[in-house]
Amino acid sequence: MYFATYSNDIEKVGVITEDGQRIIELGNFNELASFDSMIDFIINCSDEELNIIGSSLKDQEFINSNSTEISKIKLCAPIKNPRRNIICLGLNYRDHIQESQSVTKEDKTKELKQPVYFSKMASVLTGPDENVNSHKGVTEEIDYEVELAVIIGKDGTNIPAEEAEDYIFGYSIFNDVSARDLQRQHKQWIKGKSLDTFSVLGPYIVHKSEIPFPVHLNVSSKVNGELRQSSNTKNLIFDLPYIISDLSKGLTLKAGDIIATGTPAGVGMGFKPPKYLKSGDVVELEIEKIGVLRNKII
Amino acid sequence: MYFATYSNDIEKVGVITEDGQRIIELGNFNELASFDSMIDFIINCSDEELNIIGSSLKDQEFINSNSTEISKIKLCAPIKNPRRNIICLGLNYRDHIQESQSVTKEDKTKELKQPVYFSKMASVLTGPDENVNSHKGVTEEIDYEVELAVIIGKDGTNIPAEEAEDYIFGYSIFNDVSARDLQRQHKQWIKGKSLDTFSVLGPYIVHKSEIPFPVHLNVSSKVNGELRQSSNTKNLIFDLPYIISDLSKGLTLKAGDIIATGTPAGVGMGFKPPKYLKSGDVVELEIEKIGVLRNKII
Repeated sequence: MYFATYSNDIEKVGVITEDGQRIIELGNFNELASFDSMIDFIINCSDEELNIIGSSLKDQEFINSNSTEISKIKLCAPIKNPRRNIICLGLNYRDHIQESQSVTKEDKTKELKQPVYFSKMASVLTGPDENVNSHKGVTEEIDYEVELAVIIGKDGTNIPAEEAEDYIFGYSIFNDVSARDLQRQHKQWIKGKSLDTFSVLGPYIVHKSEIPFPVHLNVSSKVNGELRQSSNTKNLIFDLPYIISDLSKGLTLKAGDIIATGTPAGVGMGFKPPKYLKSGDVVELEIEKIGVLRNKII
Repeated sequence: MYFATYSNDIEKVGVITEDGQRIIELGNFNELASFDSMIDFIINCSDEELNIIGSSLKDQEFINSNSTEISKIKLCAPIKNPRRNIICLGLNYRDHIQESQSVTKEDKTKELKQPVYFSKMASVLTGPDENVNSHKGVTEEIDYEVELAVIIGKDGTNIPAEEAEDYIFGYSIFNDVSARDLQRQHKQWIKGKSLDTFSVLGPYIVHKSEIPFPVHLNVSSKVNGELRQSSNTKNLIFDLPYIISDLSKGLTLKAGDIIATGTPAGVGMGFKPPKYLKSGDVVELEIEKIGVLRNKII
Protein backbone atom coordinates (compact mmCIF):
# COMPACT_ATOMS: atom_id res chain seq x y z
CA MET A 1 0.00 0.00 0.00
CA TYR A 2 1.23 3.43 -1.05
CA PHE A 3 -0.17 6.37 0.93
CA ALA A 4 -0.12 10.00 -0.17
CA THR A 5 -1.21 13.39 1.11
CA TYR A 6 -2.77 15.61 -1.50
CA SER A 7 -4.83 18.67 -1.92
CA ASN A 8 -7.19 20.21 -4.35
CA ASP A 9 -8.40 22.61 -1.74
CA ILE A 10 -8.06 21.06 1.68
CA GLU A 11 -5.46 18.45 2.67
CA LYS A 12 -6.55 14.83 2.13
CA VAL A 13 -4.95 11.43 2.73
CA GLY A 14 -5.32 8.72 0.11
CA VAL A 15 -4.06 5.37 -1.08
CA ILE A 16 -2.69 4.73 -4.58
CA THR A 17 -4.25 2.03 -6.77
CA GLU A 18 -2.07 -0.91 -7.79
CA ASP A 19 -1.57 0.39 -11.35
CA GLY A 20 -0.08 3.55 -9.81
CA GLN A 21 -2.44 5.77 -11.82
CA ARG A 22 -5.25 6.66 -9.41
CA ILE A 23 -5.78 7.68 -5.78
CA ILE A 24 -8.64 6.86 -3.39
CA GLU A 25 -9.32 9.18 -0.48
CA LEU A 26 -9.35 7.31 2.84
CA GLY A 27 -12.76 8.86 3.59
CA ASN A 28 -14.21 6.77 0.74
CA PHE A 29 -13.62 3.45 2.52
CA ASN A 30 -16.88 2.70 4.30
CA GLU A 31 -15.62 0.84 7.33
CA LEU A 32 -12.76 3.22 8.10
CA ALA A 33 -12.57 5.82 10.87
CA SER A 34 -11.97 9.35 9.61
CA PHE A 35 -8.42 10.69 9.76
CA ASP A 36 -7.40 14.37 9.83
CA SER A 37 -3.90 13.91 8.49
CA MET A 38 -1.30 11.27 7.63
CA ILE A 39 0.06 11.45 11.19
CA ASP A 40 -3.44 10.88 12.59
CA PHE A 41 -3.73 7.88 10.25
CA ILE A 42 -0.34 6.46 11.25
CA ILE A 43 -1.15 6.77 14.94
CA ASN A 44 -4.70 5.47 14.83
CA CYS A 45 -5.19 3.04 11.94
CA SER A 46 -5.67 -0.54 13.09
CA ASP A 47 -4.38 -3.68 11.36
CA GLU A 48 -8.00 -4.46 10.56
CA GLU A 49 -8.39 -1.11 8.81
CA LEU A 50 -5.19 -1.70 6.83
CA ASN A 51 -6.67 -5.05 5.74
CA ILE A 52 -9.88 -3.36 4.59
CA ILE A 53 -7.83 -0.94 2.48
CA GLY A 54 -5.71 -3.77 1.08
CA SER A 55 -8.66 -5.87 -0.02
CA SER A 56 -10.61 -2.92 -1.43
CA LEU A 57 -7.63 -2.23 -3.70
CA LYS A 58 -8.44 -5.57 -5.42
CA ASP A 59 -12.06 -4.50 -6.01
CA GLN A 60 -12.20 -2.89 -9.46
CA GLU A 61 -15.81 -1.74 -9.05
CA PHE A 62 -14.92 0.06 -5.80
CA ILE A 63 -11.92 1.67 -7.49
CA ASN A 64 -13.97 2.80 -10.48
CA SER A 65 -16.46 4.67 -8.36
CA ASN A 66 -14.10 6.08 -5.72
CA SER A 67 -10.79 7.04 -7.32
CA THR A 68 -9.32 10.10 -9.00
CA GLU A 69 -6.50 10.23 -11.57
CA ILE A 70 -3.22 11.15 -9.89
CA SER A 71 -2.44 13.50 -12.76
CA LYS A 72 -5.44 15.62 -11.69
CA ILE A 73 -4.37 16.19 -8.10
CA LYS A 74 -1.46 17.97 -6.42
CA LEU A 75 0.62 15.75 -4.16
CA CYS A 76 2.01 17.28 -0.96
CA ALA A 77 4.76 15.79 1.19
CA PRO A 78 3.07 12.67 2.62
CA ILE A 79 3.66 14.09 6.12
CA LYS A 80 3.15 17.78 5.51
CA ASN A 81 3.50 19.22 9.03
CA PRO A 82 5.77 17.01 11.14
CA ARG A 83 5.29 17.15 14.91
CA ARG A 84 8.98 17.66 15.53
CA ASN A 85 12.25 17.99 13.63
CA ILE A 86 13.32 15.35 11.12
CA ILE A 87 15.91 13.05 12.72
CA CYS A 88 18.85 12.51 10.37
CA LEU A 89 22.00 10.44 10.24
CA GLY A 90 25.19 11.91 8.83
CA LEU A 91 28.05 9.80 7.50
CA ASN A 92 26.21 6.48 7.31
CA TYR A 93 27.77 5.18 4.06
CA ARG A 94 31.55 4.59 3.95
CA ASP A 95 32.01 6.16 0.51
CA HIS A 96 30.23 9.34 1.67
CA ILE A 97 32.54 9.65 4.71
CA GLN A 98 35.49 9.73 2.28
CA GLU A 99 34.05 12.61 0.27
CA SER A 100 32.81 14.67 3.27
CA GLN A 101 36.03 15.80 4.87
CA SER A 102 35.58 19.45 3.92
CA VAL A 103 32.53 19.70 6.17
CA THR A 104 33.34 17.24 8.93
CA LYS A 105 37.01 18.19 9.43
CA GLU A 106 37.44 14.67 10.76
CA ASP A 107 40.19 12.26 9.82
CA LYS A 108 38.46 10.25 7.10
CA THR A 109 40.48 7.14 7.83
CA LYS A 110 38.87 6.81 11.28
CA GLU A 111 35.98 4.38 11.57
CA LEU A 112 32.78 5.74 13.14
CA LYS A 113 31.98 4.01 16.41
CA GLN A 114 28.57 5.65 16.90
CA PRO A 115 25.99 7.11 14.52
CA VAL A 116 26.11 10.87 13.95
CA TYR A 117 22.58 12.19 14.53
CA PHE A 118 21.37 15.69 13.79
CA SER A 119 18.02 17.25 13.03
CA LYS A 120 16.34 19.39 10.40
CA MET A 121 13.76 21.93 11.49
CA ALA A 122 10.78 22.38 9.16
CA SER A 123 7.20 23.29 9.98
CA VAL A 124 6.19 22.41 6.39
CA LEU A 125 7.88 19.70 4.35
CA THR A 126 8.45 20.20 0.63
CA GLY A 127 6.51 17.70 -1.48
CA PRO A 128 7.01 16.15 -4.93
CA ASP A 129 6.93 18.66 -7.78
CA GLU A 130 7.33 21.56 -5.34
CA ASN A 131 10.36 23.81 -5.62
CA VAL A 132 13.43 24.08 -3.42
CA ASN A 133 14.46 27.67 -2.74
CA SER A 134 18.10 28.48 -3.54
CA HIS A 135 18.24 31.19 -0.81
CA LYS A 136 20.47 33.53 -2.74
CA GLY A 137 22.44 35.72 -0.36
CA VAL A 138 22.12 33.19 2.50
CA THR A 139 24.09 30.28 0.98
CA GLU A 140 26.27 29.71 -2.09
CA GLU A 141 26.68 25.96 -1.63
CA ILE A 142 23.39 24.04 -1.92
CA ASP A 143 23.69 20.29 -2.13
CA TYR A 144 21.35 17.30 -2.57
CA GLU A 145 21.35 14.03 -0.58
CA VAL A 146 19.15 11.03 -1.44
CA GLU A 147 18.11 9.12 1.69
CA LEU A 148 15.78 6.30 2.67
CA ALA A 149 13.30 7.78 5.18
CA VAL A 150 11.83 5.53 7.86
CA ILE A 151 8.43 6.58 9.20
CA ILE A 152 7.88 5.50 12.81
CA GLY A 153 4.52 3.79 13.40
CA LYS A 154 4.16 3.70 17.18
CA ASP A 155 5.77 5.25 20.24
CA GLY A 156 8.68 3.38 21.77
CA THR A 157 11.62 3.75 24.17
CA ASN A 158 14.56 1.34 24.55
CA ILE A 159 13.38 -0.67 21.53
CA PRO A 160 15.31 -3.95 21.11
CA ALA A 161 17.00 -4.17 17.67
CA GLU A 162 15.13 -7.39 16.91
CA GLU A 163 11.77 -5.63 17.40
CA ALA A 164 12.66 -2.56 15.30
CA GLU A 165 10.39 -3.44 12.36
CA ASP A 166 7.35 -3.48 14.70
CA TYR A 167 7.89 0.24 15.28
CA ILE A 168 8.09 1.13 11.58
CA PHE A 169 5.00 2.24 9.67
CA GLY A 170 6.66 2.52 6.29
CA TYR A 171 9.27 4.13 4.06
CA SER A 172 9.66 7.16 1.85
CA ILE A 173 12.34 9.13 -0.03
CA PHE A 174 13.99 12.12 1.63
CA ASN A 175 16.12 14.84 0.07
CA ASP A 176 18.33 16.22 2.85
CA VAL A 177 19.06 19.49 1.06
CA SER A 178 22.11 21.09 2.68
CA ALA A 179 23.87 24.47 2.68
CA ARG A 180 27.48 23.30 3.01
CA ASP A 181 28.87 26.77 3.80
CA LEU A 182 26.46 27.19 6.73
CA GLN A 183 27.14 23.64 7.94
CA ARG A 184 30.84 24.50 8.21
CA GLN A 185 30.42 27.98 9.69
CA HIS A 186 28.11 26.93 12.53
CA LYS A 187 29.97 23.67 13.36
CA GLN A 188 26.78 21.91 14.46
CA TRP A 189 24.78 21.30 11.28
CA ILE A 190 21.17 22.27 12.03
CA LYS A 191 21.22 25.78 10.54
CA GLY A 192 22.72 24.66 7.23
CA LYS A 193 20.21 21.82 7.06
CA SER A 194 17.06 23.78 7.97
CA LEU A 195 16.60 26.60 5.48
CA ASP A 196 12.98 26.85 4.34
CA THR A 197 12.08 24.18 1.68
CA PHE A 198 15.25 22.12 2.50
CA SER A 199 13.32 19.09 3.85
CA VAL A 200 11.80 17.20 0.93
CA LEU A 201 9.70 14.04 1.42
CA GLY A 202 7.75 11.88 -0.98
CA PRO A 203 6.17 11.00 -3.26
CA TYR A 204 4.50 8.34 -1.09
CA ILE A 205 4.82 6.52 2.18
CA VAL A 206 5.09 2.86 1.27
CA HIS A 207 3.69 0.58 3.96
CA LYS A 208 6.29 -1.78 5.43
CA SER A 209 4.29 -4.80 4.23
CA GLU A 210 5.50 -4.00 0.69
CA ILE A 211 9.22 -4.19 1.50
CA PRO A 212 11.07 -7.25 2.87
CA PHE A 213 13.07 -6.72 6.05
CA PRO A 214 16.05 -6.19 6.27
CA VAL A 215 15.54 -3.39 3.76
CA HIS A 216 17.92 -3.67 0.78
CA LEU A 217 16.89 -1.13 -1.84
CA ASN A 218 18.77 0.61 -4.64
CA VAL A 219 19.02 4.37 -4.09
CA SER A 220 20.17 6.91 -6.66
CA SER A 221 20.10 10.58 -7.53
CA LYS A 222 20.33 12.52 -10.77
CA VAL A 223 20.83 16.22 -11.41
CA ASN A 224 19.50 17.38 -14.78
CA GLY A 225 19.51 13.74 -15.86
CA GLU A 226 23.16 13.10 -14.88
CA LEU A 227 23.60 10.19 -12.46
CA ARG A 228 25.31 11.42 -9.28
CA GLN A 229 24.63 8.91 -6.50
CA SER A 230 24.04 5.17 -6.81
CA SER A 231 24.13 2.71 -3.93
CA ASN A 232 21.95 0.32 -1.95
CA THR A 233 20.64 0.59 1.59
CA LYS A 234 22.44 -2.68 2.39
CA ASN A 235 25.57 -0.47 2.51
CA LEU A 236 24.34 1.52 5.52
CA ILE A 237 27.04 1.42 8.23
CA PHE A 238 24.35 1.52 10.94
CA ASP A 239 21.29 -0.41 9.71
CA LEU A 240 17.64 0.23 10.61
CA PRO A 241 17.48 -2.12 13.63
CA TYR A 242 20.65 -0.55 15.05
CA ILE A 243 19.44 3.02 14.43
CA ILE A 244 16.00 2.49 15.97
CA SER A 245 17.41 0.64 18.95
CA ASP A 246 20.27 3.07 19.58
CA LEU A 247 18.27 6.24 19.03
CA SER A 248 15.46 5.09 21.32
CA LYS A 249 17.79 4.44 24.28
CA GLY A 250 16.36 6.87 26.82
CA LEU A 251 14.63 8.85 24.05
CA THR A 252 11.03 8.05 23.16
CA LEU A 253 10.45 7.78 19.42
CA LYS A 254 6.93 8.93 18.47
CA ALA A 255 4.54 7.71 15.78
CA GLY A 256 5.02 9.99 12.79
CA ASP A 257 8.70 10.66 13.49
CA ILE A 258 10.78 10.69 10.30
CA ILE A 259 14.29 9.23 10.38
CA ALA A 260 16.47 10.00 7.34
CA THR A 261 19.09 7.26 7.27
CA GLY A 262 22.02 8.98 5.55
CA THR A 263 23.29 9.41 2.01
CA PRO A 264 25.88 7.58 -0.15
CA ALA A 265 28.79 9.15 -2.12
CA GLY A 266 28.17 11.41 -5.08
CA VAL A 267 26.87 14.59 -3.46
CA GLY A 268 27.90 17.90 -5.01
CA MET A 269 30.61 18.71 -2.46
CA GLY A 270 32.40 15.43 -3.28
CA PHE A 271 33.38 16.58 -6.78
CA LYS A 272 36.49 18.63 -7.60
CA PRO A 273 35.45 21.31 -8.24
CA PRO A 274 32.20 20.87 -6.29
CA LYS A 275 28.96 20.62 -8.26
CA TYR A 276 26.55 22.64 -6.13
CA LEU A 277 22.95 23.17 -7.20
CA LYS A 278 21.89 26.34 -8.99
CA SER A 279 18.56 27.85 -9.91
CA GLY A 280 16.89 25.85 -12.67
CA ASP A 281 18.49 22.51 -11.78
CA VAL A 282 16.18 19.50 -11.47
CA VAL A 283 17.02 16.88 -8.83
CA GLU A 284 15.53 13.41 -9.17
CA LEU A 285 15.89 10.92 -6.35
CA GLU A 286 14.90 7.31 -6.86
CA ILE A 287 14.53 4.45 -4.42
CA GLU A 288 13.55 1.01 -5.65
CA LYS A 289 9.95 0.04 -4.75
CA ILE A 290 9.21 3.55 -3.46
CA GLY A 291 9.39 5.77 -6.53
CA VAL A 292 10.93 8.99 -7.80
CA LEU A 293 11.04 12.32 -5.95
CA ARG A 294 11.63 15.20 -8.37
CA ASN A 295 12.15 18.86 -7.45
CA LYS A 296 13.35 21.98 -9.20
CA ILE A 297 15.68 24.53 -7.61
CA ILE A 298 14.42 28.09 -8.00
CA MET B 1 2.53 39.56 33.23
CA TYR B 2 3.63 36.07 34.20
CA PHE B 3 1.91 33.23 32.33
CA ALA B 4 1.81 29.60 33.43
CA THR B 5 0.43 26.29 32.23
CA TYR B 6 -1.07 24.14 34.96
CA SER B 7 -3.25 21.22 35.54
CA ASN B 8 -5.53 19.81 38.14
CA ASP B 9 -7.10 17.50 35.61
CA ILE B 10 -6.92 19.05 32.17
CA GLU B 11 -4.24 21.51 31.00
CA LYS B 12 -5.05 25.18 31.62
CA VAL B 13 -3.30 28.47 30.91
CA GLY B 14 -3.30 31.17 33.54
CA VAL B 15 -1.74 34.44 34.63
CA ILE B 16 -0.08 35.00 38.01
CA THR B 17 -1.28 37.78 40.33
CA GLU B 18 1.16 40.56 41.17
CA ASP B 19 1.84 39.22 44.67
CA GLY B 20 3.02 35.98 43.03
CA GLN B 21 0.69 33.90 45.22
CA ARG B 22 -2.34 33.21 43.04
CA ILE B 23 -3.23 32.25 39.48
CA ILE B 24 -6.21 33.23 37.30
CA GLU B 25 -7.25 30.98 34.44
CA LEU B 26 -7.45 32.87 31.14
CA GLY B 27 -10.99 31.52 30.66
CA ASN B 28 -12.09 33.68 33.62
CA PHE B 29 -11.42 36.96 31.80
CA ASN B 30 -14.76 37.91 30.27
CA GLU B 31 -13.65 39.72 27.15
CA LEU B 32 -11.00 37.17 26.16
CA ALA B 33 -11.19 34.57 23.38
CA SER B 34 -10.70 31.02 24.61
CA PHE B 35 -7.28 29.45 24.18
CA ASP B 36 -6.47 25.72 24.03
CA SER B 37 -2.86 25.98 25.09
CA MET B 38 -0.04 28.43 25.74
CA ILE B 39 1.03 28.20 22.09
CA ASP B 40 -2.51 28.98 20.95
CA PHE B 41 -2.47 31.98 23.32
CA ILE B 42 0.93 33.19 22.07
CA ILE B 43 -0.19 32.95 18.44
CA ASN B 44 -3.64 34.47 18.82
CA CYS B 45 -3.75 36.89 21.74
CA SER B 46 -4.09 40.51 20.63
CA ASP B 47 -2.47 43.55 22.27
CA GLU B 48 -5.95 44.54 23.35
CA GLU B 49 -6.43 41.22 25.12
CA LEU B 50 -3.05 41.61 26.84
CA ASN B 51 -4.24 45.04 28.03
CA ILE B 52 -7.43 43.53 29.44
CA ILE B 53 -5.39 40.99 31.38
CA GLY B 54 -2.98 43.67 32.59
CA SER B 55 -5.72 45.95 33.92
CA SER B 56 -7.72 43.11 35.48
CA LEU B 57 -4.62 42.23 37.52
CA LYS B 58 -5.09 45.60 39.29
CA ASP B 59 -8.72 44.78 40.18
CA GLN B 60 -8.67 43.15 43.62
CA GLU B 61 -12.35 42.25 43.49
CA PHE B 62 -11.84 40.41 40.20
CA ILE B 63 -8.82 38.60 41.64
CA ASN B 64 -10.69 37.59 44.79
CA SER B 65 -13.46 35.87 42.87
CA ASN B 66 -11.41 34.33 40.04
CA SER B 67 -8.05 33.16 41.38
CA THR B 68 -6.65 30.02 42.96
CA GLU B 69 -3.65 29.72 45.29
CA ILE B 70 -0.57 28.60 43.35
CA SER B 71 0.27 26.21 46.16
CA LYS B 72 -2.91 24.29 45.33
CA ILE B 73 -2.16 23.65 41.66
CA LYS B 74 0.49 21.69 39.78
CA LEU B 75 2.51 23.80 37.36
CA CYS B 76 3.55 22.21 34.04
CA ALA B 77 6.21 23.53 31.70
CA PRO B 78 4.62 26.76 30.40
CA ILE B 79 4.84 25.31 26.86
CA LYS B 80 4.15 21.66 27.53
CA ASN B 81 4.13 20.22 23.98
CA PRO B 82 6.36 22.29 21.70
CA ARG B 83 5.57 22.19 17.98
CA ARG B 84 9.16 21.44 17.07
CA ASN B 85 12.54 20.93 18.71
CA ILE B 86 13.98 23.49 21.12
CA ILE B 87 16.57 25.63 19.32
CA CYS B 88 19.72 25.99 21.43
CA LEU B 89 22.99 27.86 21.31
CA GLY B 90 26.17 26.21 22.47
CA LEU B 91 29.25 28.11 23.56
CA ASN B 92 27.65 31.53 23.89
CA TYR B 93 29.52 32.73 27.01
CA ARG B 94 33.34 33.09 26.81
CA ASP B 95 33.98 31.49 30.20
CA HIS B 96 31.93 28.42 29.19
CA ILE B 97 33.97 27.97 25.98
CA GLN B 98 37.07 27.72 28.16
CA GLU B 99 35.64 24.92 30.29
CA SER B 100 34.04 22.95 27.40
CA GLN B 101 37.04 21.63 25.54
CA SER B 102 36.44 18.02 26.56
CA VAL B 103 33.21 17.96 24.56
CA THR B 104 33.95 20.36 21.74
CA LYS B 105 37.51 19.18 20.93
CA GLU B 106 38.05 22.67 19.55
CA ASP B 107 41.00 24.91 20.26
CA LYS B 108 39.62 27.01 23.12
CA THR B 109 41.73 30.00 22.22
CA LYS B 110 39.91 30.45 18.92
CA GLU B 111 37.15 33.05 18.85
CA LEU B 112 33.76 31.90 17.54
CA LYS B 113 32.81 33.70 14.35
CA GLN B 114 29.29 32.26 14.13
CA PRO B 115 26.83 30.96 16.71
CA VAL B 116 26.75 27.20 17.29
CA TYR B 117 23.11 26.09 16.99
CA PHE B 118 21.75 22.66 17.83
CA SER B 119 18.38 21.31 18.86
CA LYS B 120 16.79 19.26 21.61
CA MET B 121 13.98 16.88 20.74
CA ALA B 122 11.16 16.62 23.29
CA SER B 123 7.50 15.94 22.77
CA VAL B 124 6.82 16.86 26.41
CA LEU B 125 8.83 19.46 28.31
CA THR B 126 9.66 18.92 31.97
CA GLY B 127 8.06 21.53 34.23
CA PRO B 128 8.92 23.02 37.62
CA ASP B 129 8.90 20.51 40.47
CA GLU B 130 8.93 17.59 38.01
CA ASN B 131 11.84 15.17 38.07
CA VAL B 132 14.71 14.72 35.62
CA ASN B 133 15.45 11.07 34.87
CA SER B 134 19.08 10.04 35.38
CA HIS B 135 18.83 7.33 32.65
CA LYS B 136 21.06 4.85 34.43
CA GLY B 137 22.69 2.56 31.88
CA VAL B 138 22.31 5.11 29.07
CA THR B 139 24.56 7.90 30.42
CA GLU B 140 27.01 8.34 33.30
CA GLU B 141 27.63 12.06 32.81
CA ILE B 142 24.49 14.16 33.35
CA ASP B 143 25.05 17.89 33.53
CA TYR B 144 22.92 21.01 34.14
CA GLU B 145 22.98 24.28 32.17
CA VAL B 146 21.03 27.40 33.18
CA GLU B 147 19.88 29.40 30.14
CA LEU B 148 17.65 32.34 29.34
CA ALA B 149 14.90 31.02 27.03
CA VAL B 150 13.37 33.37 24.48
CA ILE B 151 9.81 32.53 23.41
CA ILE B 152 9.05 33.65 19.85
CA GLY B 153 5.75 35.55 19.53
CA LYS B 154 5.10 35.68 15.79
CA ASP B 155 6.36 34.05 12.61
CA GLY B 156 9.28 35.74 10.87
CA THR B 157 11.97 35.20 8.25
CA ASN B 158 15.01 37.42 7.63
CA ILE B 159 14.20 39.49 10.72
CA PRO B 160 16.36 42.64 10.98
CA ALA B 161 18.31 42.76 14.27
CA GLU B 162 16.73 46.10 15.17
CA GLU B 163 13.23 44.54 14.96
CA ALA B 164 14.09 41.42 16.97
CA GLU B 165 12.12 42.42 20.08
CA ASP B 166 8.91 42.65 18.00
CA TYR B 167 9.18 38.90 17.38
CA ILE B 168 9.61 37.99 21.06
CA PHE B 169 6.62 37.07 23.22
CA GLY B 170 8.52 36.65 26.45
CA TYR B 171 11.19 34.89 28.46
CA SER B 172 11.59 31.85 30.65
CA ILE B 173 14.26 29.71 32.32
CA PHE B 174 15.60 26.64 30.53
CA ASN B 175 17.67 23.79 31.93
CA ASP B 176 19.57 22.30 28.98
CA VAL B 177 20.23 18.97 30.72
CA SER B 178 23.05 17.21 28.86
CA ALA B 179 24.58 13.72 28.74
CA ARG B 180 28.22 14.66 28.11
CA ASP B 181 29.33 11.12 27.21
CA LEU B 182 26.66 10.85 24.48
CA GLN B 183 27.47 14.36 23.23
CA ARG B 184 31.08 13.28 22.67
CA GLN B 185 30.32 9.84 21.22
CA HIS B 186 27.85 11.03 18.58
CA LYS B 187 29.84 14.17 17.59
CA GLN B 188 26.68 16.12 16.74
CA TRP B 189 24.99 16.86 20.07
CA ILE B 190 21.28 16.11 19.61
CA LYS B 191 21.23 12.59 21.09
CA GLY B 192 23.07 13.61 24.28
CA LYS B 193 20.75 16.59 24.65
CA SER B 194 17.42 14.84 23.98
CA LEU B 195 16.99 12.05 26.51
CA ASP B 196 13.46 12.02 27.94
CA THR B 197 12.95 14.73 30.65
CA PHE B 198 16.16 16.59 29.59
CA SER B 199 14.33 19.73 28.38
CA VAL B 200 13.16 21.70 31.41
CA LEU B 201 11.23 24.98 31.08
CA GLY B 202 9.60 27.25 33.61
CA PRO B 203 8.27 28.20 36.00
CA TYR B 204 6.60 30.97 33.98
CA ILE B 205 6.77 32.79 30.69
CA VAL B 206 7.34 36.42 31.56
CA HIS B 207 5.87 38.77 28.99
CA LYS B 208 8.48 40.98 27.32
CA SER B 209 6.77 44.11 28.67
CA GLU B 210 8.22 43.23 32.13
CA ILE B 211 11.86 43.20 31.02
CA PRO B 212 13.78 46.13 29.50
CA PHE B 213 15.49 45.50 26.17
CA PRO B 214 18.40 44.79 25.71
CA VAL B 215 17.92 42.03 28.26
CA HIS B 216 20.53 42.15 31.04
CA LEU B 217 19.57 39.66 33.74
CA ASN B 218 21.55 37.81 36.39
CA VAL B 219 21.53 34.05 35.82
CA SER B 220 22.71 31.43 38.29
CA SER B 221 22.50 27.77 39.17
CA LYS B 222 22.87 25.81 42.39
CA VAL B 223 23.18 22.08 42.99
CA ASN B 224 22.04 20.99 46.46
CA GLY B 225 22.35 24.63 47.51
CA GLU B 226 25.97 25.03 46.26
CA LEU B 227 26.39 27.92 43.82
CA ARG B 228 27.78 26.62 40.52
CA GLN B 229 27.04 29.17 37.78
CA SER B 230 26.70 32.93 38.12
CA SER B 231 26.71 35.39 35.25
CA ASN B 232 24.53 37.92 33.45
CA THR B 233 22.93 37.73 30.01
CA LYS B 234 24.85 40.89 29.09
CA ASN B 235 27.81 38.50 28.72
CA LEU B 236 26.24 36.60 25.81
CA ILE B 237 28.71 36.54 22.90
CA PHE B 238 25.81 36.62 20.41
CA ASP B 239 22.99 38.73 21.87
CA LEU B 240 19.25 38.32 21.27
CA PRO B 241 19.00 40.68 18.27
CA TYR B 242 21.94 38.93 16.61
CA ILE B 243 20.58 35.43 17.31
CA ILE B 244 17.05 36.18 16.06
CA SER B 245 18.32 37.96 12.99
CA ASP B 246 20.98 35.36 12.11
CA LEU B 247 18.84 32.30 12.82
CA SER B 248 15.93 33.62 10.76
CA LYS B 249 18.04 34.14 7.62
CA GLY B 250 16.27 31.82 5.21
CA LEU B 251 14.66 29.93 8.11
CA THR B 252 11.19 30.94 9.29
CA LEU B 253 10.93 31.25 13.06
CA LYS B 254 7.44 30.31 14.28
CA ALA B 255 5.34 31.65 17.14
CA GLY B 256 5.92 29.34 20.10
CA ASP B 257 9.50 28.45 19.13
CA ILE B 258 11.80 28.29 22.13
CA ILE B 259 15.39 29.54 21.78
CA ALA B 260 17.74 28.63 24.65
CA THR B 261 20.52 31.19 24.50
CA GLY B 262 23.47 29.30 25.99
CA THR B 263 24.98 28.78 29.43
CA PRO B 264 27.84 30.43 31.36
CA ALA B 265 30.79 28.69 33.08
CA GLY B 266 30.27 26.46 36.09
CA VAL B 267 28.65 23.37 34.59
CA GLY B 268 29.61 19.99 36.06
CA MET B 269 32.05 19.03 33.31
CA GLY B 270 34.08 22.20 33.95
CA PHE B 271 35.27 20.99 37.39
CA LYS B 272 38.31 18.76 37.97
CA PRO B 273 37.17 16.13 38.70
CA PRO B 274 33.81 16.78 37.00
CA LYS B 275 30.73 17.23 39.21
CA TYR B 276 28.06 15.36 37.29
CA LEU B 277 24.53 15.04 38.64
CA LYS B 278 23.41 11.95 40.51
CA SER B 279 20.09 10.62 41.67
CA GLY B 280 18.75 12.70 44.56
CA ASP B 281 20.48 15.94 43.54
CA VAL B 282 18.35 19.09 43.42
CA VAL B 283 19.14 21.66 40.73
CA GLU B 284 17.90 25.22 41.18
CA LEU B 285 18.20 27.70 38.32
CA GLU B 286 17.47 31.36 38.92
CA ILE B 287 17.10 34.24 36.51
CA GLU B 288 16.42 37.72 37.79
CA LYS B 289 12.83 38.91 37.20
CA ILE B 290 11.76 35.46 35.98
CA GLY B 291 12.05 33.22 39.02
CA VAL B 292 13.48 29.91 40.17
CA LEU B 293 13.25 26.59 38.31
CA ARG B 294 13.85 23.67 40.69
CA ASN B 295 14.07 19.99 39.74
CA LYS B 296 15.20 16.81 41.38
CA ILE B 297 17.23 14.12 39.62
CA ILE B 298 15.80 10.63 40.10
